This record gives sequence, structure tokens and C-alpha cells, in this order.
Amino acid sequence: MSKQRVLTGITTTGTPHLGNYVGAIRPAIAASQNPELQSFYFLADYHALIKCDDAARIEQSRREIAATWLALGLDTEKAVFYRQSDIPEIPELCWLLSCMAAKGLMNRAHAYKAAVAANEDAGEDPDYGVTMGLYGYPVLMAADILMFNANTVPVGKDQIQHVEMARDIAGRFNHHYGEHFVLPQAQVDDKVAVLQGLDGRKMSKSYNNTIPLFLPEKKLKKHINKIKTNLLEPGEPKDPDTSTVFQIWEAFATDEQTQAMRAKFAEGIAWGEAKRELFELVNNQLGDAREAYEDLMARPADIEDILQQGATRAREYSQPLIAKLRSAVGLKAMI
Amino acid sequence: MSKQRVLTGITTTGTPHLGNYVGAIRPAIAASQNPELQSFYFLADYHALIKCDDAARIEQSRREIAATWLALGLDTEKAVFYRQSDIPEIPELCWLLSCMAAKGLMNRAHAYKAAVAANEDAGEDPDYGVTMGLYGYPVLMAADILMFNANTVPVGKDQIQHVEMARDIAGRFNHHYGEHFVLPQAQVDDKVAVLQGLDGRKMSKSYNNTIPLFLPEKKLKKHINKIKTNLLEPGEPKDPDTSTVFQIWEAFATDEQTQAMRAKFAEGIAWGEAKRELFELVNNQLGDAREAYEDLMARPADIEDILQQGATRAREYSQPLIAKLRSAVGLKAMI
Repeated sequence: MSKQRVLTGITTTGTPHLGNYVGAIRPAIAASQNPELQSFYFLADYHALIKCDDAARIEQSRREIAATWLALGLDTEKAVFYRQSDIPEIPELCWLLSCMAAKGLMNRAHAYKAAVAANEDAGEDPDYGVTMGLYGYPVLMAADILMFNANTVPVGKDQIQHVEMARDIAGRFNHHYGEHFVLPQAQVDDKVAVLQGLDGRKMSKSYNNTIPLFLPEKKLKKHINKIKTNLLEPGEPKDPDTSTVFQIWEAFATDEQTQAMRAKFAEGIAWGEAKRELFELVNNQLGDAREAYEDLMARPADIEDILQQGATRAREYSQPLIAKLRSAVGLKAMI
Repeated sequence: MSKQRVLTGITTTGTPHLGNYVGAIRPAIAASQNPELQSFYFLADYHALIKCDDAARIEQSRREIAATWLALGLDTEKAVFYRQSDIPEIPELCWLLSCMAAKGLMNRAHAYKAAVAANEDAGEDPDYGVTMGLYGYPVLMAADILMFNANTVPVGKDQIQHVEMARDIAGRFNHHYGEHFVLPQAQVDDKVAVLQGLDGRKMSKSYNNTIPLFLPEKKLKKHINKIKTNLLEPGEPKDPDTSTVFQIWEAFATDEQTQAMRAKFAEGIAWGEAKRELFELVNNQLGDAREAYEDLMARPADIEDILQQGATRAREYSQPLIAKLRSAVGLKAMI
């Protein structure tokens, strides 16, 4: 029996932060060690173009994200790790799927509906500022998934709909042209850790409240010191369950360490001390990876090399499939 | 100064007929001889998928259209003659352009608006039966045109809008990323001959009233005999200007021959006789090309070979341009 295929894309517009690490990167790298799974991880740089027209930002982000995953120990012999824009079969499949994807399906996409609602509230044309890239993004995502016949796509709740759209498009294609695609399943892990940011809201680039993953030591300390706390004095008992400091601690600590910190909160640990301990914990845990990261960031040609090897492996899947699909729709060579 | 580039795509869903020949193929092949122009002609098989999910039909049509243009003497040393689906840079460019193309632009496309109007008349959802391929078709057409920085795109009036959309998308891309694209111009030739079909309406596959271009002699004769005429008897003067027989005659005859036939109409030529003469004229004019066509149709590997040579030439344009564009948007390699 062939392995279950799991696929995850990372949009290359930002710098990885602690929230990405805890919520996505760490579990993905762990999953890639599971011998029953074949993992596909890719830098979604075509997707990045939808929301970012700053070429330098995209380039920097691609490099940072690739270096991050590699520095954290992603085993590229096991996982297939590639860059979306190195796989020409993907935009081609995107077009083939477009011809099977109902426009009405896109009208129901949450992201598009939110843009329309915002425009209507502002008294604008419903499609103001909406590009065909934003609108057609679920078709590209379907191409990403179906290109590798992924069985499972781990997603946040907001992305379930897109996987369902990929299923819908795959089903329609199969119905017209024969059984070419596996119908993918969204996999929502309710236990996914969502880290709080500096201001206590979800850590997210859009809130500008992140702690970047591989800050130099001094800067990491500075950032951790900026975490919002309340005005309780040293000695006053503190509630761990409403504290961002404690929540981040928990994401990095062993159960034992977490219990110990909980006790310290009850005993009234000073915020400054709690932050100092948090810094030590995170810094120790990420120290080696940070070194590897900095080393890799200084050797972009080596990152490129690894990505090219990944593209070669990915295309061992995408090339035979696109050939079959071309033949099914009427685009095969005449010989 | 570099040559003006002219680009024409032929959707590969049908069998070339006399109307295509007179209105499009013959003038295009003539234009390709103009030393001041660089012509690009391509089999638009990605576009074919929008309206045709019959793979065998598309395959047959690609072969027939390629064989037709070659049999009619297209000089593939001069014109760049290729198949859209052999140029992977085109679907990639289509995605890059999607991220710059306003969705609102597509809402104004005539073809889409017609589909919506028909749905509303039928009490259906406005987007009923509309695929993302149909809706996004102007973006793919923009990619076709901009990929080769065509200056001029000869089109029928119904297609002017699509060339304007390509201009709009090109302008927006240039504005964001620098001057990469020539702004293409639609070229509408008012003198384009529109041939009437068997029933007197415009000759068109959708009316099922065509005379296929390379019918075997007997069948050509049969088709010409089916052209609708009125009930006037031999000897009664006939009006050439309302006669499909005369109109097709005119499209194939010299001025002298046309004058002579006009005189015969005034003298009351019998319909049977007029059709016989029309058959002789068309049959003589197409006889050699038909032979070449049948010969080519029997050698698909040779057609494939010519198309592959065309793809190689086309990609001498598309590969360097896509490399520049990838670099402009942030997708270049890290080395």
C-alpha cells in the first residue's frame, strides 16, 4: 500500500515567528518523521504574489522560510521540500482545473466574501481591489493539492473550505475525464497551539505583534520583555491562564517545567523574572537551530541547491500526472 | 528597428471551413509574407478546453488546423507557428497576470455578460454553467499576447474588448513592476470577408451551415449543391447581391471572373449551372492544397515535428521574457 500523502504550503510573504513555529513548523517537521506518511512541504510563492507586489519581500521571505525549515531539521530525504514556482506543471494544472471549476464555487469563498462585504460597507464597487489572483486562489490551491494527489491537508479552520473546493473540482474533473485525482481531506487539529503575540492577541504578522523565530539573542530578550503584562507587583499571585508569558512558556516547556512555572505564578513571581526565565527557555531551545539558520542564510546558493533537488523529486510526481491529464483532456502529442 | 509583431490564435475545436479560409487563414498566410512583420500563429488548445470537454474532438481539430495552415503554404521559417500547450511559460504568465488583473475588468467582458444575461432570462443563478476558465479567459488571452510582446492583434469586432483588457493588464503590470510589456493594439479589418453558409447566414460551426475546406471532391460538390437558393427558373434574371452562391464565387474569383458571373446572373443562369461553376472554381483553387492536406493528415508525426520546431522558436521569445518577469515579481533563483 502506498503511503498517505500529506501536503502543506507556506506562503512566502513573512518572516517565521514563534507562532508559526509552535503552530505549524514544529508539528510538520515531527509529522515528516512518521514512516507511514509521505510529506510534501512547499514554499507557496505563486500564492505570495496575490497579496504582495514587493519582490524583495518575497525573495527575502522565501530564503528565510527555507532556511528556517532546514535549520530546524527538516529531513529532505524524507519530506519532499520544494518551491511552487519551480514546478511548471502547477500553473498548467491550474488552467486545466479552471476549465472544470464552477465560478459559483469561488463566489462562496470566505476570503472573497469578506472582501466584498468590506467594499460594500465602504460604499465601493463589490469587486474593488479584488484581483483575479485573489478570486481564483482556490483553483491554484486545488492545483497544489491535486498535483501530488495528497490525501490529507492539515489546515486551520479558515482553510477547510478551500480543501472542500479542491475536492469539488477534483470530483468534477474525475467525472468528466476519468478517475485521475484522489479526493483530498482537510485535517483540522483542534489541539494546534495558537500562540499569543506581544499584545495578547493571536501572534500574527497582520497584528504586528510577533516575536520572530530566529532573532539574535539580544533582540529576542528585548522582544520577550515587551510582552504585555498586568500591573501586579512581585509577590502578588498571578493568573497563568490569562498570561501570554505563561502561554508561550507552556508551548516550549516540558510538562514538568510547566507545572513548576504554574507554581511560581501562584507564588507571585515577578514579571521581569518570569520573562527572564522564558527567554532562557526559548533561547536554549532555539540556539542551535539559530546558528544553523544564520549559517544557511549566508549561503543562499546552498539553499537554492536543496530546493532544486526538491523540485526534481516533486516533478517525479507532477510530470507523469500532467502527462496523463494532458492526454485525458486532448492535449497529448500527435505521435 | 525590430519588426512589428502580429499574433493570431486559432481555437482548436472545429474543422476549418471555407469561411475560416477566406476570412482568416488566407489573409493571415498572405500577411506572413510581409517582410516588415513577424507573425506568430498558434493553435489555442488551452482555450479549446473552455468550451470543449471532448478530448478526441480537440485532438482531431489540432491536427486538422495544423495540416490546413501548412497545406495552404504557411512558411514556418518566416512565421512562428506553434501550439499554445507546448509553451509552459504561457500558463505561468497567466498566473502572474491574474495577480494584476482586476476582477471588475472580467465582469465587463461581453462573453461573460452574455452568459449571465442568458442565465437571468432562464431564471437561473447568474453564474450557472460558467467556469473559471470561461470567466478568466481574457487573462489567458492577455498572456498569449503579452508573452510575445505582440504589437498588433488582428481580431473581429467582438474581440476588440479582449485586446483592450490585455492592454489594461499590461499597463497595470508595467506600472507595478517596470516596463516589461508592449501595449498591444487590436487591428480590425473592416474589409474582412465574412462568408455566408449553406443557409445564407454567416458561415459558422455554431449554425451547422459550413462547407469544410478540404472535403473530398464529391462531398464538396454535394455541399455546394446544398446552398440555399430561391425558386427562380433558368432564364430568369437573378440578383447576385443576395445570393450565397455569388458571394462565395466572389471570394474565390478574380475581378474578371466576378464580372463575368455577374453578367451570367443578369442573363438568368440556372442555379444548378452556377453551382457547378462554383464547384469548379473552388475545387481547382483548393485541389493542390487538399492533396497536401490529405498527405499531411496521414503523417501526424511530421506535423508534430513541425509544431515542436515552432515551439522551440516560440520559446526563444517566451523563456527570456518569463525569466525577466519572474525576477521582477520576486520569483528568481537565489543565486
